[in-house]
Amino acid sequence: MKVLAGLTVVPLGVGVSLSAYVAECERILAEAGLHPRLHANGTNVEGEWGAVFAALERCHERLHEMGAPRVTTTLQVGTRTDRDQSLDDKVRSVESKLGRGAP
Amino acid sequence: MKVLAGLTVVPLGVGVSLSAYVAECERILAEAGLHPRLHANGTNVEGEWGAVFAALERCHERLHEMGAPRVTTTLQVGTRTDRDQSLDDKVRSVESKLGRGAP
Amino acid sequence: MKVLAGLTVVPLGVGVSLSAYVAECERILAEAGLHPRLHANGTNVEGEWGAVFAALERCHERLHEMGAPRVTTTLQVGTRTDRDQSLDDKVRSVESKLGRGAP
Amino acid sequence: MKVLAGLTVVPLGVGVSLSAYVAECERILAEAGLHPRLHANGTNVEGEWGAVFAALERCHERLHEMGAPRVTTTLQVGTRTDRDQSLDDKVRSVESKLGRGAP
Repeated sequence: MKVLAGLTVVPLGVGVSLSAYVAECERILAEAGLHPRLHANGTNVEGEWGAVFAALERCHERLHEMGAPRVTTTLQVGTRTDRDQSLDDKVRSVESKLGRGAP
Repeated sequence: MKVLAGLTVVPLGVGVSLSAYVAECERILAEAGLHPRLHANGTNVEGEWGAVFAALERCHERLHEMGAPRVTTTLQVGTRTDRDQSLDDKVRSVESKLGRGAP
Repeated sequence: MKVLAGLTVVPLGVGVSLSAYVAECERILAEAGLHPRLHANGTNVEGEWGAVFAALERCHERLHEMGAPRVTTTLQVGTRTDRDQSLDDKVRSVESKLGRGAP
Repeated sequence: MKVLAGLTVVPLGVGVSLSAYVAECERILAEAGLHPRLHANGTNVEGEWGAVFAALERCHERLHEMGAPRVTTTLQVGTRTDRDQSLDDKVRSVESKLGRGAP
């Protein structure tokens, strides 16, 4: 089953500068072929259900290896059966309603 | 890897009464041995990473079968390596700080 | 406008034991008359829009005073115009579908 | 208190095509001076606490006016006292760890 997901991974117990951890997770998601799109509060991915959650598990494992005793992820995951939709489709759909065309 | 998670499953395209869908998902999570604890905005589960996300995938599949063309889940998932902690431990830990003892 | 909300408040930069911070926030929400119901991954509240978000702002301020340089809250907030619904109604609605009666 | 927030607004009871509702909310957030940055699973904003949550309340009110009997928003809101940080700073911080420079 295809999934569009938004992830925010937060390591706890490693201070307040989290960007090195977020970057490591971004690399893992990219290597898994999930095409992560970073934004200011997380990253969006698309892929098969199993691939997405296996990659996220590797993110947790890796952040623990990097020294985080606790890792908490907030995520939104969407599936639909009415039509095939990509992350880019979702953005374009709203942009068109806002009267913003493709560049 | 053991996981504590909080899930809010929302079927879209089936109107505003969602309790039958939420109940079906609750059954699936219970059958998977995840001991779901229902609350007003979702349900909490504990179990192994793979078991939790396989059960959630079945929830999405089942809600699609029940007629929902679109299903979106918001979830928080936490792992920790410093100690073993259950859902009940988390509640007790805060309750004790509030000066509320066990019944 | 009446709101049902679920909050998970996470202070960053204060280590991995967060229960004292969560308890302080629970007190603030209770004092604001929002009837917080604690669960393993957060707390649920009900009240007017302005009251809920003013209380949450006080939680952030208080956690900063307690020493957290960074506070991040994940929340779900719902409003509806079709009927009046309480937190307890939401739980009862699912429980009844599960064939669990009131005690 | 300055806030960085990520919002996902979901109207229920209006079918599965939500982009017109999301676009309307995007307009309200922009008019409130919150500089929304749309992405595939929501939008990010920055501004003062009161301004952010007043604008989000207007989003809920407007979506109800447009016919949605139920509106649910998932949001992440972060505050910090250790330094001033913008949405763009957060992205740049991770990008630099990934070895991606400014264009």
